[in-house]
Amino acid sequence: MQNGVILLKRPPSIRAYAAVVGKKEGEGPLGDWFDQVHADTTFGQKTWEQAESRMQQMAVQTVLKKADLSAADIDLLFAGDLLNQCIGSSFGLQSFELPYYGLYGACSTMAESISLASLAVQAGYAHRALAVTSSHFCSAERQYRMPLEYGGQRAPSAQWTVTGSGAVILQSTGKAPYVRAVCAGRITDLGVCDINNMGAAMAPAAYRTIRTFLEETHTSPNDYDHIFTGDLGHIGTSILYELFDQDGMDLRAVHDDCGLMMYNLKEQDVHAGGSGCGCSASVLCGVILPQFAAGKYHNVLFVATGALMSPTSYQQGSSIPGIAHLVYLSDQDTPFNRQEELA
Amino acid sequence: MQNGVILLKRPPSIRAYAAVVGKKEGEGPLGDWFDQVHADTTFGQKTWEQAESRMQQMAVQTVLKKADLSAADIDLLFAGDLLNQCIGSSFGLQSFELPYYGLYGACSTMAESISLASLAVQAGYAHRALAVTSSHFCSAERQYRMPLEYGGQRAPSAQWTVTGSGAVILQSTGKAPYVRAVCAGRITDLGVCDINNMGAAMAPAAYRTIRTFLEETHTSPNDYDHIFTGDLGHIGTSILYELFDQDGMDLRAVHDDCGLMMYNLKEQDVHAGGSGCGCSASVLCGVILPQFAAGKYHNVLFVATGALMSPTSYQQGSSIPGIAHLVYLSDQDTPFNRQEELA
Repeated sequence: MQNGVILLKRPPSIRAYAAVVGKKEGEGPLGDWFDQVHADTTFGQKTWEQAESRMQQMAVQTVLKKADLSAADIDLLFAGDLLNQCIGSSFGLQSFELPYYGLYGACSTMAESISLASLAVQAGYAHRALAVTSSHFCSAERQYRMPLEYGGQRAPSAQWTVTGSGAVILQSTGKAPYVRAVCAGRITDLGVCDINNMGAAMAPAAYRTIRTFLEETHTSPNDYDHIFTGDLGHIGTSILYELFDQDGMDLRAVHDDCGLMMYNLKEQDVHAGGSGCGCSASVLCGVILPQFAAGKYHNVLFVATGALMSPTSYQQGSSIPGIAHLVYLSDQDTPFNRQEELA
Repeated sequence: MQNGVILLKRPPSIRAYAAVVGKKEGEGPLGDWFDQVHADTTFGQKTWEQAESRMQQMAVQTVLKKADLSAADIDLLFAGDLLNQCIGSSFGLQSFELPYYGLYGACSTMAESISLASLAVQAGYAHRALAVTSSHFCSAERQYRMPLEYGGQRAPSAQWTVTGSGAVILQSTGKAPYVRAVCAGRITDLGVCDINNMGAAMAPAAYRTIRTFLEETHTSPNDYDHIFTGDLGHIGTSILYELFDQDGMDLRAVHDDCGLMMYNLKEQDVHAGGSGCGCSASVLCGVILPQFAAGKYHNVLFVATGALMSPTSYQQGSSIPGIAHLVYLSDQDTPFNRQEELA
């Protein structure tokens, strides 16, 4: 590995994927793509946190069903979420009784969990590994900002936490897409302190990870069909473009941000876009991977971004550290070699 | 892998380790063992959370110095802590600029981070990987229980969160101890709801992980010089013994719990013992690994235990899920084979 980039010589196959989302996400432009859209965002539970756990459980049940597998067919589970102590995962996933490594990557968790699951599968530690994450608007709002009952006004730069969960099964052999490389992000903090502008806080981390990956693999943005970032929203996306512009690279033609794809920004009143672990997770599992399987994409960079602050750290005046993890998806299962493939 | 057990054919070497602790830990029976004991538990910072971050940073600085390495010599970093959104790690470790996978395993984090670092090193993803965690009494108390200023009375079954941090550098070749196997824990919840009795909540997870490892490797407790659990305290330890008694296995002669080793229980007024990510981390790095290097041990099971609830989940009446991750330390760098080694 160099600078966090790991090329996979025996690229794991993404065997199955599932996305479960809430009502508002179902009403957005991607609504028809998700495996399940639930008008009742309590998911039949008494609390929002339990609702999020239940949603994660449903995503795993769905992905197992789509793969025609049972939990016993999975060797290793990587998961995490935004809630304090990651209770979305610890309560949502315990019924599957799987060996479990818990993660905290904030909204980068889908890429982090797929990365670690892919690394475990390629090394032979697991024949099949499961990567899962979620976020829920109502549990996130009261934890990070205000209880919903306050009816607090939202800043124009604020993003809307997606109610959604994504689950992916990686296995050692199988069909495309394959995970041919990953890049572990570095904590990047350029001093943004505005809790209502997470896109700005995360954009430098996304830039750094993508830039590192392109340098280490001697590739350029145009070598990929598409680059998807997690949840930069429109402010973070603008900053990302500016940062690449300074390097003489125009990302616009090949880039989309899951936070901008999820909602009709103006009509759905989500301000700067979607966010949350569930944002990139449900767009990946509901839209990107199905489109990949349908032949629309052959080479995709999936770059989920996370903001690693807590309400306590920002109340204490600390700036917001960002991180971005990258997963390179391809329909080729041969080792990734820039010269051969992209020349 | 079977049931979370992964045998490492090219066991990574533990190149260096460091433990940094606070005043109370320095006054305990292990006080002389730690690399650094700080009488000022603010570590020169303005808030307890920043103090914890600073302590983690110092643990990494110390382990790098002991290994005669710089941060640039480390390929991959695995870390996490107890604080909401793991800010102990995200603020404490960002200055090292390392590719970083954040973890949440509560008090099991030292074993989880060493496990994932070892797996990454054996697979060749990293030549050297760093595993880090911490806890701080003052940041944990106000997050999980009450602000210190309340002077709340503690239940007799409660444990005392250790102010401490541990850091371990794993590398592909080198001296003993070696990590010859790991066992990923499963979330285990037998319905304990008492937030003042975490040992009872975690003991079944410790039992399950150790039992699984013994079964999969066809070994018995007496095949190991010692088995160390993370922070069960005296109530959790009693339950662990009872559970093994039911299987006709007496763990007492080969077992110690880091939570019982850290303090003079009565004189230091810590009730049921120590706890926190920093408990097993600092005992491992300050005591177990140095004693291993000095020839006292040849085969050790290190089993850190975590409670995966949050204040929100227990206020909502949920029980406390536990998890335990296991790391098998040995002075042999050959593949672990029960028949050959232990017959």
